[in-house]
Amino acid sequence: MFAVIMAGGKGSRFWPRSRERMPKHLLDILSERTIIRETVDRIRPLVPAERTLIVTGRSHAAELIRQLPEIPPENILIEPVGRNTAPCIGLAATHILKRGSDAVMLVLPSDHRIGNEPVFREVLQAAAGAASRGDSLVTIGIRPTGPETGYGYIEQGDLFSTSGNEKIYRVRSIREKPPREQAEQFFRQGGFSWNSGMFVWKASTILKAIERCLPDLHRGLIQIREALGTNREEEVVGTIYAGLQSVSIDYGVMEKAKDVLVIPGDFGWSDVGSWDTLWEVAGKDPDGNAVRGPFLGIDAADSLVHSPGKLVVLVGVRDLLVVETDDALLVCRRGRSQEVRKVIELLEREGRKDYL
Amino acid sequence: MFAVIMAGGKGSRFWPRSRERMPKHLLDILSERTIIRETVDRIRPLVPAERTLIVTGRSHAAELIRQLPEIPPENILIEPVGRNTAPCIGLAATHILKRGSDAVMLVLPSDHRIGNEPVFREVLQAAAGAASRGDSLVTIGIRPTGPETGYGYIEQGDLFSTSGNEKIYRVRSIREKPPREQAEQFFRQGGFSWNSGMFVWKASTILKAIERCLPDLHRGLIQIREALGTNREEEVVGTIYAGLQSVSIDYGVMEKAKDVLVIPGDFGWSDVGSWDTLWEVAGKDPDGNAVRGPFLGIDAADSLVHSPGKLVVLVGVRDLLVVETDDALLVCRRGRSQEVRKVIELLEREGRKDYL
Repeated sequence: MFAVIMAGGKGSRFWPRSRERMPKHLLDILSERTIIRETVDRIRPLVPAERTLIVTGRSHAAELIRQLPEIPPENILIEPVGRNTAPCIGLAATHILKRGSDAVMLVLPSDHRIGNEPVFREVLQAAAGAASRGDSLVTIGIRPTGPETGYGYIEQGDLFSTSGNEKIYRVRSIREKPPREQAEQFFRQGGFSWNSGMFVWKASTILKAIERCLPDLHRGLIQIREALGTNREEEVVGTIYAGLQSVSIDYGVMEKAKDVLVIPGDFGWSDVGSWDTLWEVAGKDPDGNAVRGPFLGIDAADSLVHSPGKLVVLVGVRDLLVVETDDALLVCRRGRSQEVRKVIELLEREGRKDYL
Repeated sequence: MFAVIMAGGKGSRFWPRSRERMPKHLLDILSERTIIRETVDRIRPLVPAERTLIVTGRSHAAELIRQLPEIPPENILIEPVGRNTAPCIGLAATHILKRGSDAVMLVLPSDHRIGNEPVFREVLQAAAGAASRGDSLVTIGIRPTGPETGYGYIEQGDLFSTSGNEKIYRVRSIREKPPREQAEQFFRQGGFSWNSGMFVWKASTILKAIERCLPDLHRGLIQIREALGTNREEEVVGTIYAGLQSVSIDYGVMEKAKDVLVIPGDFGWSDVGSWDTLWEVAGKDPDGNAVRGPFLGIDAADSLVHSPGKLVVLVGVRDLLVVETDDALLVCRRGRSQEVRKVIELLEREGRKDYL
């Protein structure tokens, strides 16, 4: 079994901690370990370092290798440019097949939080069992905790099999991020999972699905496969990748594929998409403050304080997100951290590259 | 004419910028210049550096000399321990008489803001004129802008004289910081000034008043006078000062003295006692933000941002005081900066001397 960790994200929503050169998964914002370090550690009982592949951009490779010294450098696959998840996954599958093994791949984002790791691994193993016995594309679903509109929804059909505590269903339909009303209907109705962006399948299975659904990408991957291990590899991957269409595996493959299964999982998942989400999933003191770093509060409540080095004192405030780095300080009303994107846009417009 | 600048204050209310080793008057929180630098520059047209005396504690002398290189080092008078304003002023008067001149002394706090400096100097000159012509103790009053309870009030009596635009009155009574109701009555009634803590008198006049009102202090000052310029000076001043009673010139002398005059002044005065006051007196952008340092606001209003080096971004917040230093960050609800004192107390209790 292989693990493929997709580490192409930018995570600009975690500014000022996240920067162009230091995206979210390379940061220790969830715990003392960086998020990619947690992601790799979490699957270690299932997959050894030699079979853990990480797909990332060139500018982040050095930091990744520094943070994950046990991963063989040849397992860091460079995407010359970001082309969304379908090319990324196709590239990883091509590498795995080239190594002579039609292994099951666990495809995992690099930057999610998993609260219950033993259950998470049970789910992955159940998925891997199902994937290895045929040509199914298995998605890891998340049992919805509310009618969120920020995720895709997977509608389950008949029960396919049972593995320990985990139930595997055929997928009836995959829905893009729905409007509020529809999300509420899905949530009330039951039988829907959130699309976590985690998948399990054999390398040959996903490549066959790519061949059917994204033939241009498949042709590119064949050319890449021929160049792998030769002195033309970097040049060929660079040329082919530049010409690829940017498309997600969900839209490009999963929504059109036939033999798709889902395991609804319940393991304390969060994609931790913003400082607000971080406050929600973080441990809090009795006043509701989630604190990293030295802190003193006087009548201060329900706030996130992220300042690894500096003493932060809050007096008479609540519902704030306070994030401090060596060169920038963010103070944001809780509930409005999506607007951090506007900060990035403003800084770009003003040419303040030093803060990006 | 001499100027005596009292620079013994701690200014702990400006934490985290103010520290035990760096009190308010040594900080550049009002402008690009430090407050003591502004104080000295402001009186330069009236008093040369050689006749400007500064009374301060031992631990702040080096920084003072660094900031005010034009002041002769022998004009920095060291208080071995803080004993409030009466001993401080008595010490300065003793130095002036020892230099052989019964000059008029302008006694000025080191850490006030003056918006209109030409008018301020006019008031000082009028006061000096009155003080030089007899044995009056002249206080600089401030025309009240509201029924503040944080200041003492000076009740004016008959007109004593007129000097240019300035009117000098006999003082009928001096009142300690009044309760709210009384402050409102004083404000409605008129004829009251705030006690600014600025005084003008001849050195001999204040020493005679000290002799009458605070005979113990006067005896100590005579001993100090004998030791000045000898190799016993430091030892004698240290011993005498340690034994002195801590008493303010207001309570110890002014409230009991007979020949007291007041000039009600109107020159944009503020004692800038807290971060809240600083926001009030500071220039603001159209959103009401008073900003020092690089700043970006998205729907952010009516806040103070004091961060000389670091980019501060506020998103969706208002009425905050945000103050950032190399080792600490304060985020305080506007209107509650008096509670910064609690921060100091907490840090003291926890033995966090590094932050004090």
